[in-house]
Amino acid sequence: DPYLKVFTLNSNPGLAHEVTKQIGVEMGKSSVKRFSDGEIQVNIEESIRGCDVFLVQSTSEPANEHLMELLIMIDAMKRASAATINVVIPYYGYARQDRKARSREPITSKLVANLLETAGATRVLTIDLHATQIQGFFDIPVDQLLAEPILSKHFQDKGVEDTVIVSPDHGGVVRARKMADRLQAPIAIIDKRRPEPNVSEVMNIVGNVEGKTAIIVDDIIDTAGTMTLAADALLEAGAKEVYACSTHPVLSGPAIERIENSNIKELAVTNTIVLPEEKKIDKVTQLSLAPLIAEAIIRVHEQTSVSTLFE
Amino acid sequence: DPYLKVFTLNSNPGLAHEVTKQIGVEMGKSSVKRFSDGEIQVNIEESIRGCDVFLVQSTSEPANEHLMELLIMIDAMKRASAATINVVIPYYGYARQDRKARSREPITSKLVANLLETAGATRVLTIDLHATQIQGFFDIPVDQLLAEPILSKHFQDKGVEDTVIVSPDHGGVVRARKMADRLQAPIAIIDKRRPEPNVSEVMNIVGNVEGKTAIIVDDIIDTAGTMTLAADALLEAGAKEVYACSTHPVLSGPAIERIENSNIKELAVTNTIVLPEEKKIDKVTQLSLAPLIAEAIIRVHEQTSVSTLFE
Ligand SMILES: Nc1ncnc2c1ncn2[C@@H]1O[C@H](COP(=O)(O)O)[C@@H](O)[C@H]1O
Ligand SMILES: Nc1ncnc2c1ncn2[C@@H]1O[C@H](COP(=O)(O)O)[C@@H](O)[C@H]1O
Repeated sequence: DPYLKVFTLNSNPGLAHEVTKQIGVEMGKSSVKRFSDGEIQVNIEESIRGCDVFLVQSTSEPANEHLMELLIMIDAMKRASAATINVVIPYYGYARQDRKARSREPITSKLVANLLETAGATRVLTIDLHATQIQGFFDIPVDQLLAEPILSKHFQDKGVEDTVIVSPDHGGVVRARKMADRLQAPIAIIDKRRPEPNVSEVMNIVGNVEGKTAIIVDDIIDTAGTMTLAADALLEAGAKEVYACSTHPVLSGPAIERIENSNIKELAVTNTIVLPEEKKIDKVTQLSLAPLIAEAIIRVHEQTSVSTLFE
Repeated sequence: DPYLKVFTLNSNPGLAHEVTKQIGVEMGKSSVKRFSDGEIQVNIEESIRGCDVFLVQSTSEPANEHLMELLIMIDAMKRASAATINVVIPYYGYARQDRKARSREPITSKLVANLLETAGATRVLTIDLHATQIQGFFDIPVDQLLAEPILSKHFQDKGVEDTVIVSPDHGGVVRARKMADRLQAPIAIIDKRRPEPNVSEVMNIVGNVEGKTAIIVDDIIDTAGTMTLAADALLEAGAKEVYACSTHPVLSGPAIERIENSNIKELAVTNTIVLPEEKKIDKVTQLSLAPLIAEAIIRVHEQTSVSTLFE
């Protein structure tokens, strides 16, 4: 199909190449280089006139560089007369700044949505948004894919039994519920509270975990503080063993060290964010979303339903 | 005046503090920090409701980081109910990507203008745009200040005599003309041309420089290649000595080494871009634009003419 073209930028070329292989197309020819002063120089090296272009880029660390690469490439594609510019953002950075939690805070997540539209994006394809409300920050169509079926399948294939699916906070209960339904397991919730100001948080567990294999599920694993403390609390409450999974392996700062030294037996993540060598430890299993993304791209291009992907 | 507030971001705090001193106001309280994963976290630590806010930030190297700081802070200020958000961008980065020189190029300079407006900027105050057309990329008012009077005064104060003002290319003639008028000097133009493909450029000088003190004037000095070669060509053509000046000291890559080893006696620049210690060599004189910017801010706030600043 000469009208379907996939391009990649620098955040996640491995995933993008897996996607083109799955679809059966060549990777679009382009490059992103730097001028002497560090400004981004993009080159699109083939015609895209009239094409449905899919541009793969996570706005993962370094978020600002990756976002600017994306915006500048979208601008170039718009001026090169692409018919549609579909940005595939496996990990949508700045998603946690999605509301004013304090006075005079920015809502960067909404700002980024506006910037993408201003640059010329006509559709967004993304995975497990930190808050589903972010879809509403856009005035263009947003297809949100879910990693849950792939993470669930991983634990099914492993043969873990008598499980309880654990949400590490109240915000994640809907996500935990989905996995629990698929694995036909009960759920539990970690209820963090601070008994008094300046006293450290207490992790209270709502639900029965005794004798069970706990699987903690979250969308983003960043410094891994909550996740590793939750594992301790679960074992203390009588859980037999603790697994964890998370769609987006941000894994910043002390994350890897914490996981290494934690009571978590295995952490399953996806490849929305590239793991550099030093983060590839035995305890971390990375699952590919390339088949899911490839299928979604084909459906968008053929204008068939993306949501039925999850039935 | 409680309704005039000046804030700075991280690219040029020294200049911003000089400006507040000149105006006689305290620097607005804010901070820009990083979350563990490198995402920008901005804090505005005082009310700005109903204020004319002036936000000082050059989009100099690292351009993407500095631009994102600026966009996120504008978003926060908009949501904090500032009456007007005046962005003071002494050096407007990405200015050289102001047209499609080749097929499928972005026009990043226009993209950046759109991003600033989308974020919520209501006015731009900038200095010596690489191309005056960039003003037209904005749908909000743009006041462009000129460094020429300050650079001219520097050479006048030095007492250089019998000068010729040299534009290093055809694009810079209007700029050279302004300085020549003020210094009552003739102009000359470096006419670069490539006699045949794959043969190196020849620097031909249009105008008489013999026995004169040449002052090369440009808006941006980046790798300093053109500037230092121009100096050689001018001396070869009989110029007595060569000075140079440029508003924006980008000075990337080999620039400092080239200037050090060149026939240029002195390079005068301004402080639109901070010079790190290793770029502060004896040959480079940095002049402050703080008085000019301070005066422009007062005039914008008092709604009097900014353009008369140059009469
Ligand atoms: N990159 C980030 N790293 C850590 N915290 C963040 C980041 N971005 C935003 N936040 C904060 O995280 C909180 C929202 O997180 P959550 O409650 O999980 O939705 C807000 O208070 C934000 O200030
Ligand atoms: N940051 C940069 N460094 C060097 N060259 C650039 C930069 N940005 C754009 N350009 C190129 O500079 C040319 C325009 O420069 P000029 O002719 O001086 O206006 C265009 O061909 C751009 O591709």
